[in-house]
Amino acid sequence: MNKQTSDPAAMGGQISRRGLMLVLSSPSGAGKTTLSRRLLAEDPGLTMSISVTTRPKRPGERDGVDYIFVEPVDFDLMVNRRQLLEHAKVFDHYYGTPAEPVENALSAGRDVLFDIDWQGTQDLKEEMRDDLASVFILPPSTRELERRLKSRARDSDEEVARRMSKAADEISHWPEYDYVVVNHDVDVALDQVRAILTAERLKRARQAGLGDFVKRLRDGQ
Amino acid sequence: MNKQTSDPAAMGGQISRRGLMLVLSSPSGAGKTTLSRRLLAEDPGLTMSISVTTRPKRPGERDGVDYIFVEPVDFDLMVNRRQLLEHAKVFDHYYGTPAEPVENALSAGRDVLFDIDWQGTQDLKEEMRDDLASVFILPPSTRELERRLKSRARDSDEEVARRMSKAADEISHWPEYDYVVVNHDVDVALDQVRAILTAERLKRARQAGLGDFVKRLRDGQ
Repeated sequence: MNKQTSDPAAMGGQISRRGLMLVLSSPSGAGKTTLSRRLLAEDPGLTMSISVTTRPKRPGERDGVDYIFVEPVDFDLMVNRRQLLEHAKVFDHYYGTPAEPVENALSAGRDVLFDIDWQGTQDLKEEMRDDLASVFILPPSTRELERRLKSRARDSDEEVARRMSKAADEISHWPEYDYVVVNHDVDVALDQVRAILTAERLKRARQAGLGDFVKRLRDGQ
Repeated sequence: MNKQTSDPAAMGGQISRRGLMLVLSSPSGAGKTTLSRRLLAEDPGLTMSISVTTRPKRPGERDGVDYIFVEPVDFDLMVNRRQLLEHAKVFDHYYGTPAEPVENALSAGRDVLFDIDWQGTQDLKEEMRDDLASVFILPPSTRELERRLKSRARDSDEEVARRMSKAADEISHWPEYDYVVVNHDVDVALDQVRAILTAERLKRARQAGLGDFVKRLRDGQ
């Protein structure tokens, strides 16, 4: 990809714009995490939304980077103070999206990536419809999905079975998404998600500074 | 760009989809023709919509390739028989889009590129809303636009003046488009238009075969 295209300052010249929320959802094992990491690594205009969770920290995870790990009582406080854009219970634990960092990023013209499930996406949509671009990542086949889940050392057989069942539930929500990408090959899928991000940045409605730019154009500048 | 991404068959695996109509509009001199030609040259899934016109053929133009050149009486016949998706008068001549080749392409999952003005875009939108993705190309400045128009040997001074005046009129319609691309650099602008085409192909609503694909997935295939 051309370097200039992924540089927000070059996207529309000096035209200011509001950031967007890029939502990636998929059953686990469909490659969403790999896609998110690669997209974030190559695109300086994109930051990850860090979720708050009550689930225990896994080995290698860093507080404030992978998740913000909190006690259930603190999570409840954030819900009551309306500091979360969405929150949900998944596998006996709570997850939520802090509102303030997202609002700050969007106002500054930076984009935010969300790695959340269909419940979170539905809630975000209700709160932030115009800022959202949602992408559902599908695995190429059930067999491939199972193979990918089994190859993860960290998941027990019981966990694999539970995730396969949850996958069927997650997949049933694909019609609620703006875009659908089938992850046959991670490089092709990455090209496709990158194109979606670039296109969404170019939407007229997001380029808040276009009116002024055109006024200057029409004035002969 | 990855070859596979521009191959419609690889876009969603074996998932059938309805083609889309990619509309590019801009004042002349903003680079729309160069962008169209390069996009068509690299993307086998995209074909150009060939307009019918009553204007005289210019040197080097080929009938049936650049335009379908017809007499005013034949143009009127096509209008009366409702064989045109849109038609308009520009600079004393008539232009129109034949409906049949477009319908055939979309049904076969092929995409069609339109190089038309705001009038044509408004009419197409009314007829084919869900099939349309519209892009407005802006020049970086009025000075640059004038420079580009003057550098075209084929346009007389009078024609340049007329086109500059028409440009201001054309530019006033930018808010009616889905996407806006400012053509500072043709390579960057091409990357951006290409990303818009890729993203539009991935829209859930265009991938008609997704329902069947997901059914097979959920059945364990």
